[in-house]
Amino acid sequence: MKIAIIGLGHIGGSFSLGIKSVDPSHYFIGYDLNDHHSKTAMKLGLVDELVDFEIATTTADLIVLATPVNIIASQIIDSLDRLKNDAVLIDLGSTKDLFCQTASQHPKRSRYVACHPMAGTENSGPEAAFSALFKHKMMIICDKNKSDTDAVEKVERLFKQLEMHISHMDSKEHDRHIAYVSHLSHISSFALGLTVLEKEKNEKNIFTMAGSGFSSTVRLAKSSPAMWAPIFKQNNSNVLEALSAYIQQLEEFKKVIESDNSDQSFHLMEKANDIRRVLFGIENKS
Amino acid sequence: MKIAIIGLGHIGGSFSLGIKSVDPSHYFIGYDLNDHHSKTAMKLGLVDELVDFEIATTTADLIVLATPVNIIASQIIDSLDRLKNDAVLIDLGSTKDLFCQTASQHPKRSRYVACHPMAGTENSGPEAAFSALFKHKMMIICDKNKSDTDAVEKVERLFKQLEMHISHMDSKEHDRHIAYVSHLSHISSFALGLTVLEKEKNEKNIFTMAGSGFSSTVRLAKSSPAMWAPIFKQNNSNVLEALSAYIQQLEEFKKVIESDNSDQSFHLMEKANDIRRVLFGIENKS
Repeated sequence: MKIAIIGLGHIGGSFSLGIKSVDPSHYFIGYDLNDHHSKTAMKLGLVDELVDFEIATTTADLIVLATPVNIIASQIIDSLDRLKNDAVLIDLGSTKDLFCQTASQHPKRSRYVACHPMAGTENSGPEAAFSALFKHKMMIICDKNKSDTDAVEKVERLFKQLEMHISHMDSKEHDRHIAYVSHLSHISSFALGLTVLEKEKNEKNIFTMAGSGFSSTVRLAKSSPAMWAPIFKQNNSNVLEALSAYIQQLEEFKKVIESDNSDQSFHLMEKANDIRRVLFGIENKS
Repeated sequence: MKIAIIGLGHIGGSFSLGIKSVDPSHYFIGYDLNDHHSKTAMKLGLVDELVDFEIATTTADLIVLATPVNIIASQIIDSLDRLKNDAVLIDLGSTKDLFCQTASQHPKRSRYVACHPMAGTENSGPEAAFSALFKHKMMIICDKNKSDTDAVEKVERLFKQLEMHISHMDSKEHDRHIAYVSHLSHISSFALGLTVLEKEKNEKNIFTMAGSGFSSTVRLAKSSPAMWAPIFKQNNSNVLEALSAYIQQLEEFKKVIESDNSDQSFHLMEKANDIRRVLFGIENKS
């Protein structure tokens, strides 16, 4: 089929490369607002042809929105307005509630499937695209019952070809959970980066000692502000709830360290060790 | 030479395995308060012989303290009291100021070299020991001028055999920096783990969506409370300073997200992106 990738960056590019690697029968057309990204995407073979947004949305059998979340909502409407009767529209954005709400009144709502792949790295742009990004990762599909069965089946077939796991969820629940297990991790990393960079102004050699533990916790601070600023804005209330809960846990740590009570800090960390159970689950998904 | 490893866990065991793998001429004697650890260490070949603390410290040419930081200070005194005239004592603890102060009045101070390897994983115990742990990692030596030249040369030769990088630093500076680039990372992870585990009580399926980004930032929450509670206690004032600075950065994020100002959150994250420069340095040390 003809697949249109809107947004030729890390996510959109990896999606097309992944499918190309398992099923070369599809034809990929692509569009990106950024001319440099478009040209790079062509050079790297992420898509077979560059087209404009109108051609992409009127001719494709599957339209994939892989753009920042601040423009997905309007692109959903523009795409649904134009898409062929049996075509399917998906988005791969990190938030879901607003998009499902936006689409809800559209006569073609049922051709839209709201998706969120739990995949991505701290890198961005077409150069960061690679075919294995989605392999063994979780694809969340939201409000599945609002989409036509054939539309859901069509995209799930593709996700399975990519060897992804599939989970279904309510879009509001998605946004609540994702604030905790993804959006908050990013803020904790960004803030850690800022804290140590600020300290570096007075202590030039502070990074001599930084090792793999620091790298691991601060890695997400390399993430793209253009992608994340709209996510925090769009998932505002859930993110603020998660962030407040996080600050409260840190204040608790501060209190027990201040009180010089090793038993209490031991106890807090012992409770946190329960995360082993969760990480075991994540690492053994593949 | 005869090398005594005191504390047969992840760090002590990896140190002996690393040296064994590059230079099998040494003989390793070992001591651990925990009987089960001792037996496992022998079974895994981490040391060649189990001895008691007194034998270890009176007969070894090099004594390596790889115990939790709350017992290193007294072990430094007990070791210096006993060690042979030309023997050398090192510790591998995560704090350095207290140990250098403790040793400072001892007549044999100059046989002690204060060391901190920037190596370790979230795992602990003798089963977590592996020979490559120290390879290409940074070894910090503190207050080098208080140690005899031959003692420093002796241990630096070993560290170079392990293919480690070596850096020299003042012990107070070490403790200030390490609070930011290691101790704070651990608290940020522990608190992130606690926040999401707490949320899980009401939202059972929250971890369905957790992916590699979350894993990376929360990984250190698996770390041993028995190791970390004494570190936070011992580096109390530096850790509290770093933690307060971190909470302040998070409050700043909260403020800009609350004010719904994407430009400001974009700007904060763009500043944090400068961490790329630092991570590039860490990842290219090897």
